[in-house]
Amino acid sequence: MAAIEHLTVGSTDPPLVEGKLRLYSMRFCPYAARVHLVLNAKKIPYDPVYINLINKPEWYTSRIPTGKVPALVTEGTDLYESLIIANYLDEKYPENKLQSDDPLRKAKDSILIESFGKVGSIMYKMYFNDIDTETFDQFLGALDDFEKELSSRGTTFYGGNTVKLVDYMLWPFFERMSMFALPDKPQFKIPESRFPCLTKWMSAMKGDEAVKQHYLRPDQHAHHLNMRKAGTPDYIIIE
Amino acid sequence: MAAIEHLTVGSTDPPLVEGKLRLYSMRFCPYAARVHLVLNAKKIPYDPVYINLINKPEWYTSRIPTGKVPALVTEGTDLYESLIIANYLDEKYPENKLQSDDPLRKAKDSILIESFGKVGSIMYKMYFNDIDTETFDQFLGALDDFEKELSSRGTTFYGGNTVKLVDYMLWPFFERMSMFALPDKPQFKIPESRFPCLTKWMSAMKGDEAVKQHYLRPDQHAHHLNMRKAGTPDYIIIE
Repeated sequence: MAAIEHLTVGSTDPPLVEGKLRLYSMRFCPYAARVHLVLNAKKIPYDPVYINLINKPEWYTSRIPTGKVPALVTEGTDLYESLIIANYLDEKYPENKLQSDDPLRKAKDSILIESFGKVGSIMYKMYFNDIDTETFDQFLGALDDFEKELSSRGTTFYGGNTVKLVDYMLWPFFERMSMFALPDKPQFKIPESRFPCLTKWMSAMKGDEAVKQHYLRPDQHAHHLNMRKAGTPDYIIIE
Repeated sequence: MAAIEHLTVGSTDPPLVEGKLRLYSMRFCPYAARVHLVLNAKKIPYDPVYINLINKPEWYTSRIPTGKVPALVTEGTDLYESLIIANYLDEKYPENKLQSDDPLRKAKDSILIESFGKVGSIMYKMYFNDIDTETFDQFLGALDDFEKELSSRGTTFYGGNTVKLVDYMLWPFFERMSMFALPDKPQFKIPESRFPCLTKWMSAMKGDEAVKQHYLRPDQHAHHLNMRKAGTPDYIIIE
């Protein structure tokens, strides 16, 4: 297993690397993952610096007003908020455009991403409390809208026949969903019969190169979560 | 004084008007105001339909998933979320472009708008609780960042020498700030000496045509708020 260095109290901010964007991240954070995916998909060279969010470096909290990850250093400026960074990257680096040029399509994708908030907040409850059937049912109910939307779009991906920004913004949360069924709780698996389009989408997303470069298995995510819940957070990726 | 009709329980959804966008709004809502301002500034013909948010029409809650305003009907689609609608309008109707073509500038403006959330949540407390010196001090503290940012931009408006999208997204909250000093609480006035750039900006914003078309005075906003707090909300604009 590999311990990923996450800078903490007492550290110093590493100097920027020539020719690379600096991304402040946390290896297990779904919001930071969004930016990793966009950078990977667009093949933009970047230098990730991981931040210990439990004991943040002093320089980080004084540098980034929210104290959160992700944050991107670009053109001499610190940007934060995952969606803002993702849009910025897609506009600044127009090769392999990840958003539609159609304003209506863009707006609908933005609404879809925004509306994922309700799924996200139920997931958060499931992370930090013991997962129960009632909460899992609420979770599946909230997920129904995403199955329905994907079905009505009639394509493998939300973005069409190739992976687009909207897919990358949603994926990090889906990557983490499978951990609820671990280690021996198959009742908390997302049922394929109820979510046929999402099941196919998840499988296709796992095959995407940008996703593969940042992917962690459910048991790897679960290890991190369990250590956090036990009050002994680490940044170890188990084999 | 004028009572503005706001549709409520038992109403029906009015048919669309040929050649106009349908905007669902509430006359005193700052988020809806953002969209009015963009539509006004871009001279896009629209048909506002006002919604009673205390007793919402059944058709509205079943039509718009969030049940909130603003919502825009365009190209056969319902869009909601004020920032998403504002971006859509600016891209779909490129005349009088309200956003910069520079991705970095756009990202910085988005961060500024996003970071207004902390001022907004303190304002919300001041709306619905009795305003006190401690909360007002917190409010001014949060506002300092906006003075600083405007000062560092060195222009009258956040958008430069003319009003841009970022200004319209922030303005509705500033329009409502002056009501804290009413009816005889000058201690809750935003002090010009501490906020010289913001004071100048507010004065210039009040002269903008798009703003003037939707503007309400502090006492008009205060009347609405007071009636809501008294449990007898109305939609009357006092003379």
